[in-house]
Amino acid sequence: MSDTMNTIIRKRIAALRSKMSELGIDYYLIPTADYHNSEYVAPYFQTRAYFSGFTGSNGTLVVGMEEAGLWTDGRYFIQAEKELAGTGVDLYREMEEGVPSISEWLEDRMPVEGTLGFDGGCISIRQTRSLRKKLARKKVRFAGEYDPAAEIWTDRPPLPSHPAFVLGEEYSGESTVSKLARLREKMRQAGARIYVESKLDNLMWLFNLRGGDVECTPVALSFGVVTMDRQILFIQDSEVTEAVQEYADSISLELRPYENVCAFLQDPELYRNVSMLPDSRDSSIGAGADSSGKTAQEDTEKNSGNNLQPGCRVLFNPGSLSTRLYNALQRGREAADIRTRTHYDIEKRSPVEDFKAAKNQTEMKNIRAAYREDSAAVCRFLYWLRRHVENGTVTELTEYSAAEKMDSLRAGISDFIELSFGTISAYGPNAAMMHYSAKKDDCAQLRPEGMLLVDCGGQYLRGTTDVTRTIALGPVSDDMRRHYTLTAVGNLQLMEAVFLHGCSGRNVDILARQPLWSTFVDYKCGTGHGIGYLLGVHEGPQNIRWRYSGGMEEAVLEPGMIVSDEPGVYIEGQYGIRIETILEVAEAAKNGDGRFLCFRPLTFVPFDPALIDPAYLTPQTRDALNRYHARVYEEIAPLLDENEREWLRSQTQPI
Amino acid sequence: MSDTMNTIIRKRIAALRSKMSELGIDYYLIPTADYHNSEYVAPYFQTRAYFSGFTGSNGTLVVGMEEAGLWTDGRYFIQAEKELAGTGVDLYREMEEGVPSISEWLEDRMPVEGTLGFDGGCISIRQTRSLRKKLARKKVRFAGEYDPAAEIWTDRPPLPSHPAFVLGEEYSGESTVSKLARLREKMRQAGARIYVESKLDNLMWLFNLRGGDVECTPVALSFGVVTMDRQILFIQDSEVTEAVQEYADSISLELRPYENVCAFLQDPELYRNVSMLPDSRDSSIGAGADSSGKTAQEDTEKNSGNNLQPGCRVLFNPGSLSTRLYNALQRGREAADIRTRTHYDIEKRSPVEDFKAAKNQTEMKNIRAAYREDSAAVCRFLYWLRRHVENGTVTELTEYSAAEKMDSLRAGISDFIELSFGTISAYGPNAAMMHYSAKKDDCAQLRPEGMLLVDCGGQYLRGTTDVTRTIALGPVSDDMRRHYTLTAVGNLQLMEAVFLHGCSGRNVDILARQPLWSTFVDYKCGTGHGIGYLLGVHEGPQNIRWRYSGGMEEAVLEPGMIVSDEPGVYIEGQYGIRIETILEVAEAAKNGDGRFLCFRPLTFVPFDPALIDPAYLTPQTRDALNRYHARVYEEIAPLLDENEREWLRSQTQPI
Repeated sequence: MSDTMNTIIRKRIAALRSKMSELGIDYYLIPTADYHNSEYVAPYFQTRAYFSGFTGSNGTLVVGMEEAGLWTDGRYFIQAEKELAGTGVDLYREMEEGVPSISEWLEDRMPVEGTLGFDGGCISIRQTRSLRKKLARKKVRFAGEYDPAAEIWTDRPPLPSHPAFVLGEEYSGESTVSKLARLREKMRQAGARIYVESKLDNLMWLFNLRGGDVECTPVALSFGVVTMDRQILFIQDSEVTEAVQEYADSISLELRPYENVCAFLQDPELYRNVSMLPDSRDSSIGAGADSSGKTAQEDTEKNSGNNLQPGCRVLFNPGSLSTRLYNALQRGREAADIRTRTHYDIEKRSPVEDFKAAKNQTEMKNIRAAYREDSAAVCRFLYWLRRHVENGTVTELTEYSAAEKMDSLRAGISDFIELSFGTISAYGPNAAMMHYSAKKDDCAQLRPEGMLLVDCGGQYLRGTTDVTRTIALGPVSDDMRRHYTLTAVGNLQLMEAVFLHGCSGRNVDILARQPLWSTFVDYKCGTGHGIGYLLGVHEGPQNIRWRYSGGMEEAVLEPGMIVSDEPGVYIEGQYGIRIETILEVAEAAKNGDGRFLCFRPLTFVPFDPALIDPAYLTPQTRDALNRYHARVYEEIAPLLDENEREWLRSQTQPI
Repeated sequence: MSDTMNTIIRKRIAALRSKMSELGIDYYLIPTADYHNSEYVAPYFQTRAYFSGFTGSNGTLVVGMEEAGLWTDGRYFIQAEKELAGTGVDLYREMEEGVPSISEWLEDRMPVEGTLGFDGGCISIRQTRSLRKKLARKKVRFAGEYDPAAEIWTDRPPLPSHPAFVLGEEYSGESTVSKLARLREKMRQAGARIYVESKLDNLMWLFNLRGGDVECTPVALSFGVVTMDRQILFIQDSEVTEAVQEYADSISLELRPYENVCAFLQDPELYRNVSMLPDSRDSSIGAGADSSGKTAQEDTEKNSGNNLQPGCRVLFNPGSLSTRLYNALQRGREAADIRTRTHYDIEKRSPVEDFKAAKNQTEMKNIRAAYREDSAAVCRFLYWLRRHVENGTVTELTEYSAAEKMDSLRAGISDFIELSFGTISAYGPNAAMMHYSAKKDDCAQLRPEGMLLVDCGGQYLRGTTDVTRTIALGPVSDDMRRHYTLTAVGNLQLMEAVFLHGCSGRNVDILARQPLWSTFVDYKCGTGHGIGYLLGVHEGPQNIRWRYSGGMEEAVLEPGMIVSDEPGVYIEGQYGIRIETILEVAEAAKNGDGRFLCFRPLTFVPFDPALIDPAYLTPQTRDALNRYHARVYEEIAPLLDENEREWLRSQTQPI
């Protein structure tokens, strides 16, 4: 089977090379991406897997006439080595010493004035610019308008196409009309006349729609364009139900075919029309540019742009807008005879991203209720597991069957739609791998000792959940208890934080890490991520991280934002611990010293008392734990049966 | 007297207006600044005070033909109101609601194509660019080459001029030859051929010189230019002693007259000569630009600059280089017929700034010794104060006489040069003003109750010190003890921090604020600043702050950096508390999880046990306090006499 696969891959690459040669392409780049910069991509977009044979979730393939390379991260080194063997594709281990980055590799190999091919729909304009800069000395030609791979992949799966649905205001809490008004106010402030959006979660939120095109994320493939008097959604006809059409009509939302977005953007009419509209803010184009966070130096240069016609200024996120759409936009403006410059547009995070992140009161009410039921399902699962331990039947379970049980309990919740990600059920040393995924036929059997880590969540009409708990299945070592307790202390310290409005996740991250850092232990990931409402389980712009990255846009924590609080300890080959509690940002106090915010837990699942070593608790964190456990009992007990309730009472006893 | 002064000011402004009218200047801007962007300015540079009568340390005067305005901050509202009364100058209270900024005010008033005059030597090129951008719509002409104010101020004090001196390697720990080699390596990496520096502390550090031209900061007025084979210092002839000249000759440092710097920079020869030098890095100009932290977008634009001649690329900090020097530089390159663009230069924080911040082992050894003696002087002062309290003679003291005592004890240290800033001695409600300055004839008398805050430091051959302690002079309220204890807990939590290399002050700030924030109290300033070596008591690039400001360059904490740790509580009209302990950044551990750093205290002065309420200590902070106090006794006791030692023993008893 493996040999056959290798031959198939070799043939596919040969076909690609012959096409490349025909088109004068020297190197061809295939990332793992869709047209929307989504976190998860549908089978239609798994071109990289098709041409390399490597099936991991992250990787980039670069094919030259003589050689080919695949770049992936540490999670996949072993798998990639196996899957690439015999294909002629070399593995490049990202971040390992001496391993060139893709741009370094290309810079080394590209001929001067050579051509780099790629599917411009799957590479953002920011990525293209970055590559252009890094390969500047080679004067590379970028060929992204036409995708030769598509022609070779004849049995490509179809684009996903599931009916979209309208999310009622009892769930969204705000009408699209109101959301559009807020967006247009931001456009006005920035001096922009057109807003182009390709991020699916932003579009779903803005138009109060949902879909089923991406696994674990209920979104519909679409693009959006908003001007001062029009709103257009490009979506596959097959996804537009009668209800969706009726709703769209009711809010004057123009629905156009998904595949027509480029044609629309490159039509000069769009730009001529918006240029004619009056706008009180046109005189202050210079001021609008301030908000894009440019340096003074850059701004000096930009002043010459003040004489441009105002109507062509577009607001978009260069990190998510594809090169193809950007080029269509530029062509349209050129055809409209409107002078354009790179610096002229408002290139920044979409205002929708910020609107969406701060949940409104309706959303918060729904989310709190969903988390309560979701937490109860997790408690039921933990009780079920405990019974298996006590009965001595835990050995009959595997990581996979435990996950199945968890998933079935969650599926029982009335408004459950799907999981928000594949449940991680990792036993013993498997839990040291942060993104471990148990396969039915290839996973560990549980035993009455050590720890099981379960990380899971659901999509409900009332919101998106996520939670991780690590539990003892029997005897554990002192190190395990120490590490678990320090993780719990970090989790509680962050949960208890009080901070001034203006703080971002970078300011508070150390509260979760400090107990571990003090013992010279770190977890190699962020402490927390934002979470959507019936959208992505990972959602920006806010997060809880400590590391500064130059280009990073740092988002201030605002009331209504939701973040995860998930410190952990990962000891390779031994065990993994993660405690993830979801928090909402809330008002705490306002006085002469400022506006103070705090976190409030949404997740109500007990920590495992069997894993707490009181020697590592401080009186403050002991109090915080006892208060949290009392609250868990109060919230969840009414949702459990008598046996489960008795178990919860014992788990939440004051320590 | 006040009336006379008003008349004088009116006459001065009238003279300025007549000059302005002669020169066609519509508005004239006078900041508080010298040619070097120094924190403190010499009397020669106090032009703003001369023309406005306002003597505070911060303010900007703008004079138009009909009206004039002075902008200053909250510290000076009352004083400015008094001093400006009757002068015809309006007070603009910065940051107050509805008060226009200088650029807003100017934008409102400037005629289209009007002229804004200023002394281009006192305004950085970054400030000029920012003004240019904000006034873009008015198409303002900037006249900064010629300073009419200088002509009117006939009795202007002379430029300060004190002999410079050489700082031996037993103090500096590194030769200028070695420092220059490190600087040139950075220039090479950035593709720069010329380095222009006007910040005095950077120049003093680079050339191992010191001077006496700025109060509390032992620097000599100077400018510096470094190419790949030359180093030139522009310094007043009167400051060059025989020893300095001999030293300069020994390291091939060209000394040229201070006033010749512009002529030198606008001479095309400089650029023609450096363009001729070979440089292996010329091919990678694009790569060099990466380090300037530009956005991808900006970089795309910059690629077109790759064809420029390499030799004219200059490294400088636009925030400190004056408009006058920058213009001279541009003229020189134009005259040399070298095409230049704004984006072409390396405009960023000087590498010297980073070198200087991480003290070497010799410097650290000296600094530790200096802090030990400095701490002993503070302990002696506290003992002296305690005796006055016990004898009932504390009422004979004032804030001012207490400061005098402190200063005299410090002056007794063998290598003492001067204070590093004017000692702050603030009793009772005065301490709520962060920058309170007691005048001999206008200050509070001490009483046997409440708290005295003393913030002071010295300049020694072995380094620069800074320390604050707040002490009880008798009975204090519960609130005072609670606030003092929470401040102490914050101080200790930061002192005890362990953090991964890569963290900046923004990551750790919350450790100092958390105890106060948890009770909804904040101090409206940073937690900490860097400190120089026999240089500025405030030194970048590192600091400990929580707030994010877009343009801010965030400096990673590196071993050998020195930072203050000074949380506080300031209750207007009641009391002020600040506890400032100086810390060095040190290595803590290195393992598979990373390189961990920690802080170590340099200051060894006890906290006041009379102000500690154990109810607000956690066991951890109690331990930390007792460990710190044990260390204070161990370090300082040998430097004290028997009575002082006995007092120190009682102050450092475990709590």
